[in-house]
Amino acid sequence: MPEIAAEVRRALDAKTKPRGSLGRLEDLAVQVAVACGTATPGYLRPAIVVAAADHGVAVHGVSAYPQEVTQQMLATFASGGAAICVLAREAGAELVVVDAGVLEPVDDPAVRQVRIRAGTADFTAGPAMTRADALAALEAGTELARELDAGIVALGDMGIGNTTSAAALTAALLGLPPEEVCGRGTGVDDEGLRRKVDVVRRALARHLVDEPLDVLAAVGGLEIAFLVGVAIGAGGPVVLDGFITAAAALVAVRLTPELRGRLIASHRSPEPGHSLVLADLGLEPLLDLGLRLGEGSGAALALPLVQSALAILSDMATFEQAGVTDAGR
Amino acid sequence: MPEIAAEVRRALDAKTKPRGSLGRLEDLAVQVAVACGTATPGYLRPAIVVAAADHGVAVHGVSAYPQEVTQQMLATFASGGAAICVLAREAGAELVVVDAGVLEPVDDPAVRQVRIRAGTADFTAGPAMTRADALAALEAGTELARELDAGIVALGDMGIGNTTSAAALTAALLGLPPEEVCGRGTGVDDEGLRRKVDVVRRALARHLVDEPLDVLAAVGGLEIAFLVGVAIGAGGPVVLDGFITAAAALVAVRLTPELRGRLIASHRSPEPGHSLVLADLGLEPLLDLGLRLGEGSGAALALPLVQSALAILSDMATFEQAGVTDAGR
Repeated sequence: MPEIAAEVRRALDAKTKPRGSLGRLEDLAVQVAVACGTATPGYLRPAIVVAAADHGVAVHGVSAYPQEVTQQMLATFASGGAAICVLAREAGAELVVVDAGVLEPVDDPAVRQVRIRAGTADFTAGPAMTRADALAALEAGTELARELDAGIVALGDMGIGNTTSAAALTAALLGLPPEEVCGRGTGVDDEGLRRKVDVVRRALARHLVDEPLDVLAAVGGLEIAFLVGVAIGAGGPVVLDGFITAAAALVAVRLTPELRGRLIASHRSPEPGHSLVLADLGLEPLLDLGLRLGEGSGAALALPLVQSALAILSDMATFEQAGVTDAGR
Repeated sequence: MPEIAAEVRRALDAKTKPRGSLGRLEDLAVQVAVACGTATPGYLRPAIVVAAADHGVAVHGVSAYPQEVTQQMLATFASGGAAICVLAREAGAELVVVDAGVLEPVDDPAVRQVRIRAGTADFTAGPAMTRADALAALEAGTELARELDAGIVALGDMGIGNTTSAAALTAALLGLPPEEVCGRGTGVDDEGLRRKVDVVRRALARHLVDEPLDVLAAVGGLEIAFLVGVAIGAGGPVVLDGFITAAAALVAVRLTPELRGRLIASHRSPEPGHSLVLADLGLEPLLDLGLRLGEGSGAALALPLVQSALAILSDMATFEQAGVTDAGR
């Protein structure tokens, strides 16, 4: 929609500031306006969707944390004590907590149950899930996004072992060697990193698929498939968090290429695979703060930047309104 | 206060997240806590002080904008239509608008009048102001900061020609050649940039002073001197904006070295001198968004990151409270 972009640029150029002097904030206002399909998006009601699921591949010791932590953190999301709960409140965003397939459910009304299955299978031994399961998780995400009808949606993830799944997805979809896409996740040691690379290598050798949905079923995760669906189903801008949500976006863009322009990269994590996915998606992150938590924490921290960009567009006076000499005209 | 820093690190390490996984946000929480002198700073009431003044050196055509714009923008700060007004509202911060010496005053009760004099003199022909004027502006800033008694203070500036003053201050205090510290400011062309370098070169040749207050009087600005005082007078953390506020901080740290630990660099501007001052002060900015507006705009955009860091420290549950397995212990 080049006419919306041009209209927003004209509006920003008329504001009482040197042309372009708000840098990437101005680009962000243009992008979000185009994603919203209007030159005057105003305030966007934000929602953060954090989806959790377990990963069969965790049996290989690819994480610094035991698998039970997925369920424990899901319960902490529901009770309000997790980082993403605090950061969502700070950002004024609704937090939507989803069980997309944790091994044991959390009995809390604050958790939306989308349990296609209880965790994925070990993808070194067979596909993580069936194509039907992947599609069901994806469609549940799309449905949730439509139901939420938020102005802007941020994605978050939780799942012990899920950086290994994201690494396998990235390696498969971008044709990269395992050692380039694997990092330390939440903090594995050298031995754990070697196991991770080995697991991804074995997965790539086993699953000779390349259609995005087949790759997602083969080495993906239930929360990742769900987030693919949320990204596709959200009508407006979608704010990514770290590596896991970027891998979900990579799958989503392969399925729905027009989604690309709606994606906002909140931050750059230290995971090597994250930068590779962002480069492929053509995204430059807003923040670079060494965040490696997940949960949507980086996305929540970037939301105020997006809202500020929109407030500049809607609330600032023009040179004419303010009676300021416009030398830059 | 190493014991406060250690206490905050311990508190952060007990939270339900992998150790250090919130990266620079955790460092920020530690720094701010130390600056506040307590391991539990809680929420800090933010104030943004934007000071405006005119610069005699503007007669040399060192800015893309005519000098009258300083007064016009001061009026726009007061009426609420400027970028900093919008961004202060988004950040939930009080905006304090100060006339530190604009040529003609703005008759608006929203402007605090601290008019030591109406603009500085052309510093290629003599000192920008007397040492007594510089000291009076500085002391007025210190007094305002004490009166405000905010939890966290952000600095902003406005003054046609003030990147030339900041460049001269930087060159003089860091012993750097004019061409390394001069940039395009709000957008001068090649010819304007050459004039700027020439003006700074002539100023350095004329004013053979090195005591910080003498340098400030020789080539500084009234808003810069005022902001030096605000930084010194603020009891807690001080958030810098771009090149002008960094130059003010450079003077302030030379006068009051213990201030250094309280400084937070909000963003990195494209002005070459800005990065040089930040490096000298040992500051790594939180944002890098190509902002070159001033007014405190970058500082306002960084305030939510500081508040989020503090909310993590005060509001997140510990592993023990949440009943989450702490594998990283």
